Amino acid sequence: MSEDITIAVDAMGGDYGPAVTIPAVLELLRRDPAIRVILVGLPAALEAELKRHKASLSPRLSLHEASEVVAMDEPPAQALKRKKDSSMRVAIELVRDGLADCCVSAGNTGALMATARFVLKMMPGIERPAIATTLPTVTGHVYVLDLGANVDCVAEHLYQFAIMGAILAGAVDGKDRPTVGLLNIGHEAIKGSEVIKRAAELLRAAPINFHGNVEGDDIYKGTVDVVVCDGFVGNAVLKASEGLAGMLAQMLRQSFKKNLFTRFAALIALPVLNSFRRQVDHRQYNGASLLGLKGVVVKSHGGADSYAFRHALQYAAAEARNHVLDRIEAAVSQLEVSA
Amino acid sequence: MSEDITIAVDAMGGDYGPAVTIPAVLELLRRDPAIRVILVGLPAALEAELKRHKASLSPRLSLHEASEVVAMDEPPAQALKRKKDSSMRVAIELVRDGLADCCVSAGNTGALMATARFVLKMMPGIERPAIATTLPTVTGHVYVLDLGANVDCVAEHLYQFAIMGAILAGAVDGKDRPTVGLLNIGHEAIKGSEVIKRAAELLRAAPINFHGNVEGDDIYKGTVDVVVCDGFVGNAVLKASEGLAGMLAQMLRQSFKKNLFTRFAALIALPVLNSFRRQVDHRQYNGASLLGLKGVVVKSHGGADSYAFRHALQYAAAEARNHVLDRIEAAVSQLEVSA
Repeated sequence: MSEDITIAVDAMGGDYGPAVTIPAVLELLRRDPAIRVILVGLPAALEAELKRHKASLSPRLSLHEASEVVAMDEPPAQALKRKKDSSMRVAIELVRDGLADCCVSAGNTGALMATARFVLKMMPGIERPAIATTLPTVTGHVYVLDLGANVDCVAEHLYQFAIMGAILAGAVDGKDRPTVGLLNIGHEAIKGSEVIKRAAELLRAAPINFHGNVEGDDIYKGTVDVVVCDGFVGNAVLKASEGLAGMLAQMLRQSFKKNLFTRFAALIALPVLNSFRRQVDHRQYNGASLLGLKGVVVKSHGGADSYAFRHALQYAAAEARNHVLDRIEAAVSQLEVSA
Repeated sequence: MSEDITIAVDAMGGDYGPAVTIPAVLELLRRDPAIRVILVGLPAALEAELKRHKASLSPRLSLHEASEVVAMDEPPAQALKRKKDSSMRVAIELVRDGLADCCVSAGNTGALMATARFVLKMMPGIERPAIATTLPTVTGHVYVLDLGANVDCVAEHLYQFAIMGAILAGAVDGKDRPTVGLLNIGHEAIKGSEVIKRAAELLRAAPINFHGNVEGDDIYKGTVDVVVCDGFVGNAVLKASEGLAGMLAQMLRQSFKKNLFTRFAALIALPVLNSFRRQVDHRQYNGASLLGLKGVVVKSHGGADSYAFRHALQYAAAEARNHVLDRIEAAVSQLEVSA
């Protein structure tokens, strides 16, 4: 039923490497018979981890050797220049060479972006790549971009992000004419910087369902399907959200641990608290697209566990299955605006 | 013991006007014998609300007439030009004329900022005013600025915000050498826009306890005492945080309302949930300083209830009592950097 998809997995990336990537891959292969995976990395490390799970290579699970690993704190330029046989780079090359439909890495974002850009090149008509992910909302989820690929954006970049975001949301969620909001410090058109005002002007004339300006709280209210902002703002909002959610979870836990009565209350409330936790579990939102490149590249959180990493793999497969790249390319080729 | 402080209160401002401001003032007067309040607004409306609370004017509670009210959605320029006898403006003028030590308004932010800037003028050496507030952290609270007064900042503005924020935190919380972080998309000095890099350079040479770059999650982790950013980013982060907290609260409530068992669990857990709610109650963080002006002006959330509004009043009094303005002026006069 589902289209067959081959995922190239940087099996060495992330804080935990194969200990997380391999179990995630094995679980995905069990769940989705239309998936094939190429594990990329140091054969000894990958084989050892496969053995630990009593798993072996198969027509659906192959291994592609890469002799180097990009460190989580390695400067992007250094990774790009000195580690030409890194698991990250080789996984991306498999996409470039048509041997995989998409690739996933939990490796360092800067190095992944630099390498992907170098290996795959930008899509014609897109000047800057953007990082996009979904976040939970009261009503479902929202796509937000850019989350940190660009610190300085001109209006045309935001315009291109909006086009890409709208197509991503439309393709992956099957939404007809998803709504797009431009993040601003007020809903009124007269508010915001010159860049934002000009971007709003471009977007009002764009072939997308432009809702207008939105504010920070609109992200979680589900006001629109896609929120567009520059990478500095998007990154700050995303990380502040992670920090706040973490703080609230910690305070909630502590409230239930205070004394004997509260511990008893926690016992009674446990199923409810667990269901709440599952509902707001950020791990199911793991997986950020590097958009604007000539290939599907998905970045997993570096600290992802195997549950979260599997979600990133599924997300990459959904992007490939729904032909996000072809759709973006088609849309962009019809635009006339560029920076 | 505490120094006597007179607060000029824009009693007409906010979504609810006197219905919120008057009970907040009355409660504060009961709690703090060293506070005097000048209510500013339409006498009939204020007297009616006082009567409802069986309260009357006294040496500690006076009324100053203002014949106009700035609407919550009124454009700042219009409020400034056409409403010269607004409760907001008259309250600020009482500060300018030395009849009050500080003023508080829940009126519209843009109008309050424009009017305060026009009436009070900027402090010498500060080019741009900034909006600062406290947010809760795992370990206490953090001061964040700017939250929306400026959408485009140069490095020197961020530098001046850092100086003002450090003095605010030091003065109000009695902290010796509070730590200051510059919000960025990475901790490394090489990351971020040119403005951020230059601001970090200035801050490394500044007479403050500069921690270096921080990321969005550091805000709620309590990594530093003060976080500095431009108003666009600060506003987006603040509003996204409000949206996320609201969404999580709503989902938690819903989890406890699902069925008979969860309702029973809620009953048992109620005291714990209430204590958690009090702990993370954003209303106790109500009250944002308009910094950089020659006078203490505090903005309350427009939708504040009387509990929240009282916190804004207390915050204004604390700022005045701790001579924040004098301290900022003294610090700025010793600086050489300006835009």
